[in-house]
Amino acid sequence: MEIKKVLLSEDEMPRQWYNILADIKMNPPLGPDGNPVNPDQLAPVFPMNLIEQEVSSQRWIDIPDEVLSVYRIWRPSPLVRAYALEKALDTPARIYYKNEGVSPPGSHKPNTAVPQAYYNKVFGIKRLTTETGAGQWGSALAFACSQFGLTCKVFMVRVSFDQKPYRKSMMTAWGAECVASPSTATKAGRDILEKNPDTPGSLGIAISEAVEAAVSDTSGQTRYSLGSVLNHVMLHQTIIGLEAKKQLEKIGEYPNIIIGCAGGGSNFAGIAYPFVYDKIHGKDVAIYPVEPAACPTLTRAPFAYDHGDTAGYTPLLPMHSLGHTFVPAPIHAGGLRYHGMAPTVSQLVDEGMLEPKAVEQLAAFEAGVLFARTEGIIPAPETNHALACLVDEAKKAKEEGKEKVILCNWSGHGLIDLGSYDKYFSGELKDFALSDAEKEKYTSIMANYPKPQHLKSR
Amino acid sequence: MEIKKVLLSEDEMPRQWYNILADIKMNPPLGPDGNPVNPDQLAPVFPMNLIEQEVSSQRWIDIPDEVLSVYRIWRPSPLVRAYALEKALDTPARIYYKNEGVSPPGSHKPNTAVPQAYYNKVFGIKRLTTETGAGQWGSALAFACSQFGLTCKVFMVRVSFDQKPYRKSMMTAWGAECVASPSTATKAGRDILEKNPDTPGSLGIAISEAVEAAVSDTSGQTRYSLGSVLNHVMLHQTIIGLEAKKQLEKIGEYPNIIIGCAGGGSNFAGIAYPFVYDKIHGKDVAIYPVEPAACPTLTRAPFAYDHGDTAGYTPLLPMHSLGHTFVPAPIHAGGLRYHGMAPTVSQLVDEGMLEPKAVEQLAAFEAGVLFARTEGIIPAPETNHALACLVDEAKKAKEEGKEKVILCNWSGHGLIDLGSYDKYFSGELKDFALSDAEKEKYTSIMANYPKPQHLKSR
Repeated sequence: MEIKKVLLSEDEMPRQWYNILADIKMNPPLGPDGNPVNPDQLAPVFPMNLIEQEVSSQRWIDIPDEVLSVYRIWRPSPLVRAYALEKALDTPARIYYKNEGVSPPGSHKPNTAVPQAYYNKVFGIKRLTTETGAGQWGSALAFACSQFGLTCKVFMVRVSFDQKPYRKSMMTAWGAECVASPSTATKAGRDILEKNPDTPGSLGIAISEAVEAAVSDTSGQTRYSLGSVLNHVMLHQTIIGLEAKKQLEKIGEYPNIIIGCAGGGSNFAGIAYPFVYDKIHGKDVAIYPVEPAACPTLTRAPFAYDHGDTAGYTPLLPMHSLGHTFVPAPIHAGGLRYHGMAPTVSQLVDEGMLEPKAVEQLAAFEAGVLFARTEGIIPAPETNHALACLVDEAKKAKEEGKEKVILCNWSGHGLIDLGSYDKYFSGELKDFALSDAEKEKYTSIMANYPKPQHLKSR
Repeated sequence: MEIKKVLLSEDEMPRQWYNILADIKMNPPLGPDGNPVNPDQLAPVFPMNLIEQEVSSQRWIDIPDEVLSVYRIWRPSPLVRAYALEKALDTPARIYYKNEGVSPPGSHKPNTAVPQAYYNKVFGIKRLTTETGAGQWGSALAFACSQFGLTCKVFMVRVSFDQKPYRKSMMTAWGAECVASPSTATKAGRDILEKNPDTPGSLGIAISEAVEAAVSDTSGQTRYSLGSVLNHVMLHQTIIGLEAKKQLEKIGEYPNIIIGCAGGGSNFAGIAYPFVYDKIHGKDVAIYPVEPAACPTLTRAPFAYDHGDTAGYTPLLPMHSLGHTFVPAPIHAGGLRYHGMAPTVSQLVDEGMLEPKAVEQLAAFEAGVLFARTEGIIPAPETNHALACLVDEAKKAKEEGKEKVILCNWSGHGLIDLGSYDKYFSGELKDFALSDAEKEKYTSIMANYPKPQHLKSR
């Protein structure tokens, strides 16, 4: 019988993360004065050891033993051959998915939550605040904080807070506090509620609240933690791709196509960057970040300087952005409802190293149900976006009669998102492609900001 | 760094199940006439290939390749050293748990759902009916049926149907139909609703409905599938203990204590029986089935002949039973709300090979929260009963200053049961110990049935 799951032992877990900043050129983040941000300016928000990691250009960064010790709970994650899906699609493609759903909160998010909690603890911090969309990130940070004895407060985007009540329960089980955002606990939240009391919320708003809650703690013992976008988050996630590469090597494979869904960009970067390194050095591999058509940053938004949050508390980041006041339609893939995109992912798209795709909500769920009924495990709505692209590529391989090797990041399971499947089956879900008029309206906010340069890494 | 997860490769997965009927003496099931049941009498309910397995006394039974091929989706499951829990309890015990929560529906149940769906398919059956308590079994059978192209209808105990709506969603995602029990779809259900319209339901009632729905299909293409109690179910579950044994051997360990929660008995039997074999052959090992104090079959009910279901459709089985009309209190561990107990488990308790324990609901949740905040993964309410016993034994080892090796079956995760954790934290949960008067009332129903003999296997 063929082997389905390619496993690594704990001994084979990578001991270093890969830092793409060693291999690409980046526009710097800019402060309120228009000048590049100085690390000290970030000190009220993040601990200095993480800020150093954020700006480091060292290619390989050691994973601390204390982090590896927690990673062992679920890592290395399996690389799985999707025999049943291949059969259902009658494709000559060989499909592999990296199952990040095996972590305690059910997604890739603890790959960075754990080191972030660890570095904060080492720096003497007692309490972390954060935002969460679908709840994957908030529950991951709750889990990580429980492992290191930190307290944790999570601002959860209202639409997901209502859709996915078990996410809050999960955070509570790990000892964290979770409130719906916008909340009345922050000025940023109160301002938005005053203008629009019925807002579904957005990641941008929730980030503003969490940053404010951290920097306004005068004890100095609270910091903010971000689950995506930033360089150090992408760094931590590369353990996904580093493991996948080892696993593929074990069975003598190398991917022709790599696919990951992209909201802020972290699970995508996690699987992709170790292969982007190869591509920068001449390897031929197609790499597809997949976003929702309702929030099309990479496929339709400009590469521009914009704030990471809605209130404008963060520095200006060079990224594909729909404008920091953009509130995406309430699609169920809450983790993909972000107006911007990781600067490194944005940079790589700008220079043509990555080929972004956009997927509609219904096509995503269709692919997710096919996956559940063949491979047997139920994917998160975010993951379904990657799967829709995967199905397209597997069909294309069939049309072309080519034995392509496709690697897909299965970023999380859908067990806490089952209500969205109910709505899919009952016909309540719909597609939400962004109109050109809306796009112009929101992106115009960036017209007077500085413009990033178009840089080339190879 | 020490290895936390002891893994087996797919190649190392056991190729045979262990059949305890080869090694113990059993009272036979009795038909309505008081005589031992003839296999042909079961033919309207189960396919003949499973009936043959039910009565087989062959010690080792081959696992078909088609079953192994589906098992590969999640098996072999990890055996995990609970370093963090040991540290929190400051115990000299070495604690290992077998993580059966890694399966697609999140519990040990697909270990038997998959072969049951397979054998039915081979026998030409097109449709299966079943009951489910907490929903673990129903979703496992839905998953298994989707793998083999069978249709599936699940009668879910009302109290759990209301408490755990995502279980129904999960079954739907895999293409099954799920209705609350008692339902109006069967005579058994209608009779009970007439007498008691507000009943929370019970496994016994749901079994009656599912059996009726199967045998009343005149096409002959429907059969019933049971998720626990029967000999062939225990057989299929032994893959848990067989794997655990291999894993412990790899690291040079043998357990002093084995713990599993017990409702119908299947996850307990799964981990325990390969070690019961050793005990029958002279090995010194303590084996604890753990049940809820609200439904104390092994610790307080008589060893008697009783029906497996409430309506009395099934043969009389020799088991520890609270009486087939007993409706347990609505504790959140829905999978443990069963009036009877597997005949093989009951037999082994009767002859003193197993030492049953009963645990209150609040103690179970307390242990579950401790586990979530140390080992990082959130257990099912059923599993929490095993964990409460585990914590007690680890404390006892500390008091005695003994380096005991404890093996616990972590039968499933609690991600679909998070609502019960909310209720635990908000103080809404309570204990429900059965009163002696209630016990007498319900067990008196068996007074006029034949009595099983007290047999000895060694």
